[in-house]
Amino acid sequence: MKTDNRIRASLGENEADILFTNARIINVFSGEIIPGSLAVTGSFISGFGTYPARKIINLNGRFVAPGYIDAHVHLESSMACATEFSRAVLPHGTTSVIADPHEIANVLGKEGIDFMLRSSEHQPVCIYFSLPSCVPATEMETSGAILSADDLIPFMKNDRIVALGEMMNYPGVILRDPDVLAKIENSIDHKKPVDGHAPGLSGKELFAYVAAGISSDHECTMVAEAEEKLSAGMHIMIREGTAARNLHDLLPLVNEKNFNRMMWCTDDRHPHDLLENGHIDSMVREAIRYGLDPVTAIRMATINPASYFGLHQKGAVAPGRQADLLIFSDISDPVPEQVYTKGILAAENGVINSNIKKPASIPVKSSMNIRSGNIDFSMPAGPGRLRVIEIIPHQIITRQYLTMAKVINGMAVSDISNDILKIAVIERHNGSGNVGKGFVKGFNLKKGAIASSIAHDSHNIIVVGTSDDEMKAAADAVIKAGGGMAAVCGCNICGTLSLPVAGLMSNETVEAIDRQMENLISAARYLGSSLSDPYMTLSFLALPVIPELKITDKGLVDSVNFCIVSPFA
Amino acid sequence: MKTDNRIRASLGENEADILFTNARIINVFSGEIIPGSLAVTGSFISGFGTYPARKIINLNGRFVAPGYIDAHVHLESSMACATEFSRAVLPHGTTSVIADPHEIANVLGKEGIDFMLRSSEHQPVCIYFSLPSCVPATEMETSGAILSADDLIPFMKNDRIVALGEMMNYPGVILRDPDVLAKIENSIDHKKPVDGHAPGLSGKELFAYVAAGISSDHECTMVAEAEEKLSAGMHIMIREGTAARNLHDLLPLVNEKNFNRMMWCTDDRHPHDLLENGHIDSMVREAIRYGLDPVTAIRMATINPASYFGLHQKGAVAPGRQADLLIFSDISDPVPEQVYTKGILAAENGVINSNIKKPASIPVKSSMNIRSGNIDFSMPAGPGRLRVIEIIPHQIITRQYLTMAKVINGMAVSDISNDILKIAVIERHNGSGNVGKGFVKGFNLKKGAIASSIAHDSHNIIVVGTSDDEMKAAADAVIKAGGGMAAVCGCNICGTLSLPVAGLMSNETVEAIDRQMENLISAARYLGSSLSDPYMTLSFLALPVIPELKITDKGLVDSVNFCIVSPFA
Repeated sequence: MKTDNRIRASLGENEADILFTNARIINVFSGEIIPGSLAVTGSFISGFGTYPARKIINLNGRFVAPGYIDAHVHLESSMACATEFSRAVLPHGTTSVIADPHEIANVLGKEGIDFMLRSSEHQPVCIYFSLPSCVPATEMETSGAILSADDLIPFMKNDRIVALGEMMNYPGVILRDPDVLAKIENSIDHKKPVDGHAPGLSGKELFAYVAAGISSDHECTMVAEAEEKLSAGMHIMIREGTAARNLHDLLPLVNEKNFNRMMWCTDDRHPHDLLENGHIDSMVREAIRYGLDPVTAIRMATINPASYFGLHQKGAVAPGRQADLLIFSDISDPVPEQVYTKGILAAENGVINSNIKKPASIPVKSSMNIRSGNIDFSMPAGPGRLRVIEIIPHQIITRQYLTMAKVINGMAVSDISNDILKIAVIERHNGSGNVGKGFVKGFNLKKGAIASSIAHDSHNIIVVGTSDDEMKAAADAVIKAGGGMAAVCGCNICGTLSLPVAGLMSNETVEAIDRQMENLISAARYLGSSLSDPYMTLSFLALPVIPELKITDKGLVDSVNFCIVSPFA
Repeated sequence: MKTDNRIRASLGENEADILFTNARIINVFSGEIIPGSLAVTGSFISGFGTYPARKIINLNGRFVAPGYIDAHVHLESSMACATEFSRAVLPHGTTSVIADPHEIANVLGKEGIDFMLRSSEHQPVCIYFSLPSCVPATEMETSGAILSADDLIPFMKNDRIVALGEMMNYPGVILRDPDVLAKIENSIDHKKPVDGHAPGLSGKELFAYVAAGISSDHECTMVAEAEEKLSAGMHIMIREGTAARNLHDLLPLVNEKNFNRMMWCTDDRHPHDLLENGHIDSMVREAIRYGLDPVTAIRMATINPASYFGLHQKGAVAPGRQADLLIFSDISDPVPEQVYTKGILAAENGVINSNIKKPASIPVKSSMNIRSGNIDFSMPAGPGRLRVIEIIPHQIITRQYLTMAKVINGMAVSDISNDILKIAVIERHNGSGNVGKGFVKGFNLKKGAIASSIAHDSHNIIVVGTSDDEMKAAADAVIKAGGGMAAVCGCNICGTLSLPVAGLMSNETVEAIDRQMENLISAARYLGSSLSDPYMTLSFLALPVIPELKITDKGLVDSVNFCIVSPFA
């Protein structure tokens, strides 16, 4: 019996596995740093003080903190599977994450969630999940699945599912969509919190959203917004993702009176960002650099998410808690030097320990239900002016831009000199043959085409190019890879990244993914693109919940008025 | 659908019932006092700011706080049933309590818990329960019931049962008694916290107790003890009962870094104390008087217990939370002027509102399984010296005192001039005929006898007196009342209090109980007793877990060595 073993260990009936001496222990309950010793037996912390132990590690005054917890992350954004994500964040001190498999669920539905659950077992990082609440995000696109409240119920009993994931359908909440309310009520009935996602929601609509039972938000961008949500009863997750970065803007809100309602999350971090900047550790250090008390910063990374998600054996260096520990030398700049998970030394000086084995990989079904021969990118010219999606650099909102189409033989074609390029979204889930077509300004490709099966939130194949043939070649390369990204110039493939797991994730290491990504970005630059990450930009052009003009497999979407519109105005 | 109504109310789709304007709202999330308006619809808070409303109440700058929550209380100590307890504490601002029906469960077992659940429905105060974990407390006495882990399982699903109650059997935890561990594990499996009760437990034994999954303690008497428990991960409930008073001693521990792990509780408050001093409100005021930030004191009375027990609709003035509100004028001395529960004005200026109806009372079976004719208090004199229980005033521990017995006709009898009085405990649950007999020093009765069916923890009838006949008359008076207390002088009953509910509780008001109690104490004084509350002293003489010499229906208990001993050493 596990309880039995923990009690024996705390009593010191048998030798502990490790006794850390001369430690300075971050106590997340008292907020103090307490000098002393700490015993670990098996995967749990036994207690403080002197214990007989097989191994004594003198920390010479170094600090011991609990392992960090990412309160909200989409593993899919790392493009790595659970195993490789785990190995990438572990050296940064992350020992638990609450992952929302929203992306894969939009592709593979319940099978996608099952895959994430199974493929994340037996990892050195404890991977918990929130259940995707909004699959699909809208009806203006074809997703791989529709998950109703009834579909989610069987998952609610799973101990590793700790919340209902970000309820981005706040109109559905406010308008009291029965299926939306049923999802919320089921989660609360299972004593699992409901995470929110409500950028800018304020006043009575915010109060209604909170009154519905939604208890956190990670979309705040300004102090006033976070303050209002906090005062209304929401837990605030401060996010620092690769694209959306809110830490500096929200830090002025955090003080000793309110920090216990706040935690850190990354939401979406891309491979390069993970490798270059790290994970939750980067947020803790940045917050300290900006003046936050280090212990407070650490509490927001540990006990706060553990308490919020009911993970009572996590988030603290205390008896009976899981021995997930970080050791570092400098409290003003905590760089994890050793990371223990479940009592095992798992990473040292930024490198994962070689004895941390990779669990067997889990098979997943193909997500490319598409016949490439069928794809037709041609578009007859219509009357009136051409509606063009205009990219705004570094933002995911777009503008609608009206111009004259370049027409050859009665067909609207890419107008390279004016940077008006054809863009298409190819449905890949049901083999429907849907291809949504339009034009986009901002990629500045002078030749070739690029394509990706990461296209939020339904993740159909999105492709932009200077000619129909090259677009077809790029899409074919993605399909052939079983999903992924490609850059094509003429008949040459100048870069690919295979993402065979739902067209979203690779089985390779984060480092390998990053190298291929860098190669792909170089290829896009070679083709003429001036965007810093044209694939990321591309991936958000299919997201119809964001204004102003987007594209899905059903066509151009006026995402202000929520309707499909013709390419010709 | 409730969620639906709350959303509509927050949106302001219909008129709110009440709009409080010019309020200063205690925000337990931000720790701030926020001026503004507050709307209430039905039993819930709709939101802040302007709402159309049927009734507008201008608070003219007065404060609004959430209703107070008592984190741990035995209703039985008030000697009142749920209805009258509720009506006594409501004017003091208590709108929720977590009650541990430990006393009645020791008498009536599962039926006792059922009775408490049923009789506490539809009260103006929300009465939640923790499940009694230790019935009986020891095997050295005969209780009315034995509750195993299996017995408790059906209760665990009940939404009003929010925790496993104080695990006072810490030796059982540390020695890994399978039934004790099963109780703990079942509670954790149901996502309900396990409350502790571990006076003085420290070091490795404390760590083992925490590692077993026990997450609170309300028995700390010193800062160092509370500090150690807090640092080990326990939530600290600071107690201020009628007998055990820890507030002043523990207050120096509370600061901004740790207050969110602390809450207030009363544990046991007697009728006179409730009427004279109040309830949780008295602790909040006292803490403020001693320098604690008022908002911090209020957070410890509201959001902290609500979060700890998972009562997510309680403990805050915020949208979607139950409209349990206190209104007061002076933040430095918050005396509740109006108390709202579930949106209804329930008490004003210390008086319960006349429109608060009493729910129908619930019948309960008799707990007097005893034939009074059988009781024999005589005790043949033995060899050696007499073991006497010596009372230490104002403490529940006793000393063993050895002296010569007064012997008449070969029988040991009360020696009034030396204050060596006969004491007996009569088993009343199973009709076993058990009568434990001994002698006690400290009551100082010069004539008559007193008896009570409140005798911790098994609540057999305990009686002390100057003659066997008067002891019998006092016990008979208790039995005839269906349980209660009595004082007898010669053949006259000079005071009684009927406690027909399990021999522990009256159906009368707390005021009526208090008057009868005062009368009983006067009667005991008239009989010669110099103790401030001889019935309370009497009630603890049967508690065999407290040193040094106690008495149960099985006889004198050496509660240092945990064994039954002869009255003659």
